[in-house]
Amino acid sequence: MNLPATLSAFEWVPDFARGHVRDLRVRWACEEIDRPYDAVLLDATRPRGPDYTCWQPFGQVPAWREGTLSMFESGAILLHLGETDERLLPSDPQTRWQAISWLFAALNSVEPYVGPLVDVRLFHADRPWAEDAFATFRPAAEQRLTQLSDAIGEREWLAGPFSIADIAMATVLKDVSSMNLLDGFPTLDAYLQRACARPAYARALQAQLDDFRDQPKAT
Amino acid sequence: MNLPATLSAFEWVPDFARGHVRDLRVRWACEEIDRPYDAVLLDATRPRGPDYTCWQPFGQVPAWREGTLSMFESGAILLHLGETDERLLPSDPQTRWQAISWLFAALNSVEPYVGPLVDVRLFHADRPWAEDAFATFRPAAEQRLTQLSDAIGEREWLAGPFSIADIAMATVLKDVSSMNLLDGFPTLDAYLQRACARPAYARALQAQLDDFRDQPKAT
Repeated sequence: MNLPATLSAFEWVPDFARGHVRDLRVRWACEEIDRPYDAVLLDATRPRGPDYTCWQPFGQVPAWREGTLSMFESGAILLHLGETDERLLPSDPQTRWQAISWLFAALNSVEPYVGPLVDVRLFHADRPWAEDAFATFRPAAEQRLTQLSDAIGEREWLAGPFSIADIAMATVLKDVSSMNLLDGFPTLDAYLQRACARPAYARALQAQLDDFRDQPKAT
Repeated sequence: MNLPATLSAFEWVPDFARGHVRDLRVRWACEEIDRPYDAVLLDATRPRGPDYTCWQPFGQVPAWREGTLSMFESGAILLHLGETDERLLPSDPQTRWQAISWLFAALNSVEPYVGPLVDVRLFHADRPWAEDAFATFRPAAEQRLTQLSDAIGEREWLAGPFSIADIAMATVLKDVSSMNLLDGFPTLDAYLQRACARPAYARALQAQLDDFRDQPKAT
C-alpha cells in the first residue's frame, strides 16, 4: 500500500518547453506502475520562495513527497519509484546495476553534452558567435550519441527489460531530436520512437500538458 | 565479506587533469570505508576497444567490477558502495533519500552548469568568442552556486552526516575552484576545504597520483 504522493510541476511554461519539463520523467514512471500522485503546481514566472527551496534547493521541478519522505532531482525520484516496483527497476543485481549505471549515464554522460547545444540555440541564438559555438560543441555531443547508438545496437532497452534508465535516456533524446540532431542516428531514433510508443508515456505527456494553463496567471 | 573489486583508471593524463579524473570519487569512497580494490590502468591516449566499451560504453573511467557484478558511472558506483556501508549512505529513509537527491544534484544540477565554463576555458580558449561565451555561461553557473551555498548554510554536510553526496559535490566544486570561481562563495569554499581535509580524501588523491606514469607509454 503506497502512501499518498505529491509531485511538483509548473502551472504554465512557454510552448517550446511543454512536453520537456522534467516532471514528465516522474509522471511517466508513475504511469508505468499505476502509481497515483497529486501535482502541486508552481508559478514558473516568479522566483520560488523558501517554502519551496527547503524542498527543492534549486527551485526546479520535480520534487516528490510521500508521507514524511521528501526528495528532489528527477533521477533520485526515478530511483525511488524503481525501488518500489520491478517493472521500473529489476531486482536481479546485475540488471539493477546496469539500469542504475544507464540512469546516471543519461543524466551525466549524455545530457550535459547536449545541454550546451540546447542552451546556445534556445537562449543565446542572438550572439554573433552562436553558430560557431554550436558547431564547436556539436562533435562532443555527436561522439556521445555515436557511443550510445553502438551500445544500444540490437537491444530493445538499455538494461535488458524496460527500466527507469530508458525513461531518463528517452527524455534526454527527445531534446536532442527536437534540434534535429538525431537525423544521423537511426538506432537512437528508433529507440526513442519505441519508448514514446508506450501507453504510459502518452498518458504522462497528456497529464503534464493538461496541467498547464493557457496563459501565465495575472500578477 | 566483500568480493575482490576492480576499478578502471588511466595510467597517464596531462598534469592539468591529475587529481580531477573521476575515479577519484570511487577511490575516495573506498578509502572512507577501508574497501580494497585493484586498479586496472588504461591508456588514455588511444581509443578504448570493445573489450572495455562492453564494460563502460563511453570509454570513460571509472568502471567497477566485483564478482559477476559490473557497473559504470561514478554516480552509480558511489551509490553501490553507499549501499554497502552506512558511513557512505545512512539507511534512515529520509537521510538516505536526501543524500541520493544531493548525489544527483551534484551530477545533474551543478556539474552541467560548470562544465561549459571548464570546456570553454580548457579546450576552446583559442576561439575569438571564448571570453564572451565564458561570460555568457557564467551567470547560470553562479546562480547554481548561490543556491547551493544557501542550501548548505550552516550545515557541515549536505544530507546531515557525511555521505556519497559530499564526495560527488566536493569533486565538482574542486573543478569550480580550479577556475577561481569560488572566490565569491566563502560557504562553498569552506565546505570544499572541510571535505578535502578528510584523511580518506588525501589517501584517495595520493592513490590516483601514484598510479600515473610520468610519461605516456611509448607507442
